[in-house]
Amino acid sequence: MGNNLLIAQSGGPTSVINASLAGAIRSAMASPAIGKIYGALHGLEGVLKNQIIDVESAFAQEEAFECLKRTPSMALGSCRFKLAKEPDDNYESIARRLRELEIGYFMYIGGNDSMDTVNKLSNYFEESGMEIKCIGIPKTIDNDLVETDHTPGYGSAARFVAHSLREIFCDASVYDRNSVTIVEIMGRNAGWLTAASVLARNEKFNAPHLVYLPEVPFDREQFVERIKELSQQQKVIVVAVSEGIKFASGEYVNVQPKSEFDSFGHAALSGSGRYLEDIVRKEFGFKTRTIEFSLLQRSAAHLSSDVDVEEAYACGEKAVECAVAGMNRVMVTMQRVSSDPYRVDYVPMDVARIANREKPIPREWISPDGTDLTQEFVDYALPLLGSDPLPEFFLFDKSKTL
Amino acid sequence: MGNNLLIAQSGGPTSVINASLAGAIRSAMASPAIGKIYGALHGLEGVLKNQIIDVESAFAQEEAFECLKRTPSMALGSCRFKLAKEPDDNYESIARRLRELEIGYFMYIGGNDSMDTVNKLSNYFEESGMEIKCIGIPKTIDNDLVETDHTPGYGSAARFVAHSLREIFCDASVYDRNSVTIVEIMGRNAGWLTAASVLARNEKFNAPHLVYLPEVPFDREQFVERIKELSQQQKVIVVAVSEGIKFASGEYVNVQPKSEFDSFGHAALSGSGRYLEDIVRKEFGFKTRTIEFSLLQRSAAHLSSDVDVEEAYACGEKAVECAVAGMNRVMVTMQRVSSDPYRVDYVPMDVARIANREKPIPREWISPDGTDLTQEFVDYALPLLGSDPLPEFFLFDKSKTL
Repeated sequence: MGNNLLIAQSGGPTSVINASLAGAIRSAMASPAIGKIYGALHGLEGVLKNQIIDVESAFAQEEAFECLKRTPSMALGSCRFKLAKEPDDNYESIARRLRELEIGYFMYIGGNDSMDTVNKLSNYFEESGMEIKCIGIPKTIDNDLVETDHTPGYGSAARFVAHSLREIFCDASVYDRNSVTIVEIMGRNAGWLTAASVLARNEKFNAPHLVYLPEVPFDREQFVERIKELSQQQKVIVVAVSEGIKFASGEYVNVQPKSEFDSFGHAALSGSGRYLEDIVRKEFGFKTRTIEFSLLQRSAAHLSSDVDVEEAYACGEKAVECAVAGMNRVMVTMQRVSSDPYRVDYVPMDVARIANREKPIPREWISPDGTDLTQEFVDYALPLLGSDPLPEFFLFDKSKTL
Repeated sequence: MGNNLLIAQSGGPTSVINASLAGAIRSAMASPAIGKIYGALHGLEGVLKNQIIDVESAFAQEEAFECLKRTPSMALGSCRFKLAKEPDDNYESIARRLRELEIGYFMYIGGNDSMDTVNKLSNYFEESGMEIKCIGIPKTIDNDLVETDHTPGYGSAARFVAHSLREIFCDASVYDRNSVTIVEIMGRNAGWLTAASVLARNEKFNAPHLVYLPEVPFDREQFVERIKELSQQQKVIVVAVSEGIKFASGEYVNVQPKSEFDSFGHAALSGSGRYLEDIVRKEFGFKTRTIEFSLLQRSAAHLSSDVDVEEAYACGEKAVECAVAGMNRVMVTMQRVSSDPYRVDYVPMDVARIANREKPIPREWISPDGTDLTQEFVDYALPLLGSDPLPEFFLFDKSKTL
């Protein structure tokens, strides 16, 4: 085999996955062990469809790395392609194309599905007698990969969530009336990103007042009770809810039969936020609205965490270091050395231990009633938001009226 | 009467309305002509409910002004209170309270409804022989006030829209399949903020590909035709749509009878974005999603335009200057002296000319087919986004595959 590198991106976007790409390409260009550097467009789909580009020409100027590092989403494109369990024609096509391109190194930037791909291809290449070092580079805003302290992409999305939540609380507080503002945050099975909403709090701002995570079964009666209690103490209530909250039965709340909604007398709406909104409107009649962070939470490069950007970049660099050192079937992980001062080590781990697994928030980091996070979570997550503190906002003391 | 100042905020939040408050309070504190400075909580509602605070104590440190200037939403709170056409008990209650507080100056920061309030109160005070100078300070993300080049709040919201749209386009482009991403933007009757989406474009990014404004009747057939044409040339289509688009009949598209939606085989959804989404899904079967900028577009202080923040602050300063100079029943307007270099003058105008009126985008600034804006609009709006250009993002040349 040759010594060329093929790199690709897979899964959902983050605002720093391109930083990992920049780190890997820059390191690979500087490495005498690596020949040409190719990028597959749209992940493995690009390999299968012969959509492969020479990436080096785009980096004639050093500034191009800086620009790529700050560009959200996935510069090479992505796919949701899953290899079959047993080797099939796709495996053979990929291997043939990699042989033609004289690939010695294959890097895939993605989440747990992508690590499954790295694992399968690596095994297949080995069985086929092909010497290709396969390295995984982690990314996901969901922060649900095992064996790593956290994932690149999480810190920036968490910063967006915490920062925007503080701004939304300012907005929600302007009228002198009871209101419930519900913020729906990404995360189908793990609540890490929703949990980051509590990082919005400081001594002046206590929102969010309730947090609902996929890790804890949703209890409608308890929710109504908590809203009732809170509304006796304050007018403005902000709720952070994961899109993936489930009932004790394991069913997602947002796939409830329509009839449950129809009896409310208005249109059925999808989403866990809308579901809570309907409950509040029906039970209390308060002004209520749902805000979905939607694509912004994963592509808002303007609120990136500097720590996250640099870590993502370093994961790309480390992947090249591992590949050149002859490692195979590993993903770069981050191991926390210390939270204060914050420091991580970059350590390669066997992808087989990571592929297809998910890491939920530990139950002991969630308050007993399931609607808040503990200080342990805050201590864990806060350094990931970056070195700049969230902005302080101004508040009048409204208790001292004339 | 006395020489104290009462200031309040009204209408919907913007990310810079507090900058106007900061400018007015700081100028008033420095003015020997003005005595005490009071703030009414929740606009006129606070006057009627005796929710008035002494604001000066919050500004013992100079930094507090800077903090207020950068705090989104409305630090004094807001209301949606409209005075009756003919003087009633509310007028009398307000006048009594202002007499008690020895108010000589009344300032209201708001949009065209708030200017109606300024106009009515000013007339009432005059008829009642009360010497109170009433000054309006403009704000609205909608940019729909007449007699002023633009409104404080618009530039920052426009920056959020343009910046986020560029990030969303990156995100929408990752998969190798036809997709239509619809971005729903605030503006019930004027499309200024939706129009700002075109400021996202540069030589690399051509999104949004279609823009729908309240100023132009929405034509379903033409929309289908344009999506069809575009999809023959490109896979990724981004549409910016105002929440307030209407049919030729004048009806908002998002209050269509449910039956129109039900026949699509899925739940009825509100909003102009969802309406377009349903059309795309039904007619083309493309992947489609709607993103609502929701509260973020008016409260995202982290994407404020520096020009907007400084202008909002200056409007507050100018209001004090006008009041102390003995002016009454005026609103501070901005008159553009030049676009390049960009410069405005601050000029007081009779509020009676502004109250209850709306300024739509001139038809000649909209392309003949109604789905784009002209260069005149771009030249007008671009300086309002601030002195920092939007970030450049990285793009590989994907046409040169191996």
